[in-house]
Amino acid sequence: MEKITVLGAGSWGTALAMVLANNNHDCLLWSHRENQATEINLDHTNKKYLPDTVLPINLKATSNFETAIKHADTIVIAVPTKAIRDVCQNMKEYLNGKKLFVHVSKGIEPDSFKRISEMIVDELPSSNVEAIVVLSGPSHAEEVVLNHPTTITAASEDMKAAKKIQDLFMNNSFRVYTNDDVIGVEIGAALKNVIALAAGIVDGLGYGDNAKAALITRGLAEITRLGISLGAQPYTFSGLTGMGDLIATCTSIHSRNWRAGNMLGKGASLEKVLDEIGMVVEGVRTTKAAYQLAKKQQVDMPITEALYSVLFESISPKEAVDILMHRTKKHELEDYKTF
Amino acid sequence: MEKITVLGAGSWGTALAMVLANNNHDCLLWSHRENQATEINLDHTNKKYLPDTVLPINLKATSNFETAIKHADTIVIAVPTKAIRDVCQNMKEYLNGKKLFVHVSKGIEPDSFKRISEMIVDELPSSNVEAIVVLSGPSHAEEVVLNHPTTITAASEDMKAAKKIQDLFMNNSFRVYTNDDVIGVEIGAALKNVIALAAGIVDGLGYGDNAKAALITRGLAEITRLGISLGAQPYTFSGLTGMGDLIATCTSIHSRNWRAGNMLGKGASLEKVLDEIGMVVEGVRTTKAAYQLAKKQQVDMPITEALYSVLFESISPKEAVDILMHRTKKHELEDYKTF
Repeated sequence: MEKITVLGAGSWGTALAMVLANNNHDCLLWSHRENQATEINLDHTNKKYLPDTVLPINLKATSNFETAIKHADTIVIAVPTKAIRDVCQNMKEYLNGKKLFVHVSKGIEPDSFKRISEMIVDELPSSNVEAIVVLSGPSHAEEVVLNHPTTITAASEDMKAAKKIQDLFMNNSFRVYTNDDVIGVEIGAALKNVIALAAGIVDGLGYGDNAKAALITRGLAEITRLGISLGAQPYTFSGLTGMGDLIATCTSIHSRNWRAGNMLGKGASLEKVLDEIGMVVEGVRTTKAAYQLAKKQQVDMPITEALYSVLFESISPKEAVDILMHRTKKHELEDYKTF
Repeated sequence: MEKITVLGAGSWGTALAMVLANNNHDCLLWSHRENQATEINLDHTNKKYLPDTVLPINLKATSNFETAIKHADTIVIAVPTKAIRDVCQNMKEYLNGKKLFVHVSKGIEPDSFKRISEMIVDELPSSNVEAIVVLSGPSHAEEVVLNHPTTITAASEDMKAAKKIQDLFMNNSFRVYTNDDVIGVEIGAALKNVIALAAGIVDGLGYGDNAKAALITRGLAEITRLGISLGAQPYTFSGLTGMGDLIATCTSIHSRNWRAGNMLGKGASLEKVLDEIGMVVEGVRTTKAAYQLAKKQQVDMPITEALYSVLFESISPKEAVDILMHRTKKHELEDYKTF
């Protein structure tokens, strides 16, 4: 039995805390809302994020940030991407010695183009960081809490740390693989939300499965190109955190990004979509960052560019998809060969 | 305007003939059933295979095989895999000079392990074959006839032939790419039906999108390993005919192989499934061929093996999937690095 803290009681943080508690670890889940922590402790539910789930009795919650940080030497950060820096800043005063940090967030910071682990490194003193592990893969929280079979990757430059996280989370229905390509895993995780938005648009337009399969395929190609330009290993994108997560996100009604795209494809405005979904749609922010980053890296990312023009310029979804489809005929492997 | 013959008036042959006719080519569709040819000519429908489609008036059909073969110097073979050799045998007596052959079938021959183009080479005198092109990609016939955006690959060792086929089929909604990796395209096309059966089983068991995304990802990895062992180019499997077609087949209700797997996962027997689907389920035959071929090539194909044991041995679908899930924890990239 290990002590572990999970920061953030959204659907994914709660599902991961549930996996840890079910594995008999002493897991403390931090919520910034006192009433949510109380609900978890007394009713063993988190109805806002996982309405139909009964949480394990041994899963405890707190809204006291100091208590949460001091509870464990392994901290799982499960907050939205734009809260990462604040959460790290806030925990500094409670850190004492080195801790192992795991993050499960997906995104790239606009303007700085930093990946999540780079943001954590920026904010925390190196004397307090034993290692950073990113946990990513095709894993809808709604299915994990039902113990549906799920595979996921623990990636770190420190393979000992990755293996430790593998051991903590692994059980019969939650299978954890390790990988040392942090750049590839983080880029794949961030960019899949961009393609999921685009896939939702294609579905919203009623363009069908042929078009969506082509979009996902071309989408992974452009994610891979960007990743390689940043130092990632090509094969990571063919794995669970690349292709796997992309498929899960683009073909499931559980995906907020797909749902947002679907509404856009059906004609809703971005404002209306964000308002209606009510939760964070990471893909919108990541599209801006990816668009800027592609320009900087001089990488051709036609789908990201098309989506950028839908979200932030005045191009209609149909116009953008039609432009994508009507690019000149060419040899299929050309863009792969430029790896 | 070019003269083209399409052999086989199933859903895919008919949809392709419709694309060619809509592109203003003189396309003749051969059916082995006289009443079907008559229906196409008089009613402009093919209700058995495409119940809701009105065919173009300029699309003509015949049940006279000699007329069909003599009509054109470009012959599209769109018959089930197990009819390929017979159809080639039958056309020999009508061949005069060289023709360009296109095939759109998906499978590997059990025991001989021949790909479709190899079977065509076996059966036809080389003096009658200008080139062979395989047309493959994520393309459900039901969507092509609705002019939904579709991308597809024309692959040939003879790039001039591939480009000619690209020109014949290309239009605003049907986008054709070229590729010279015939082995990779044919192996991807055949093996995707095996993984689609397995994906259907996972869905039939109610295991969810996380499990299915993992299965598709691992499935492409094992297809890629087999393909490379046979001389294919790795990147072909990341393209439309590999990943693209795999996604379209595993996530769409249009896929017969997915539907067959889904019924198996829900507990139906193989006999009942084949009886109920009523059309050819190529994946069942291909699973046997792929299983044998993997042994011969000494390639690790755990999903194909698991499916083989479900179809041809007495393992239950749940048992097979659970065995797949519970393989020992390992480094994610291991199997990619053994490329």
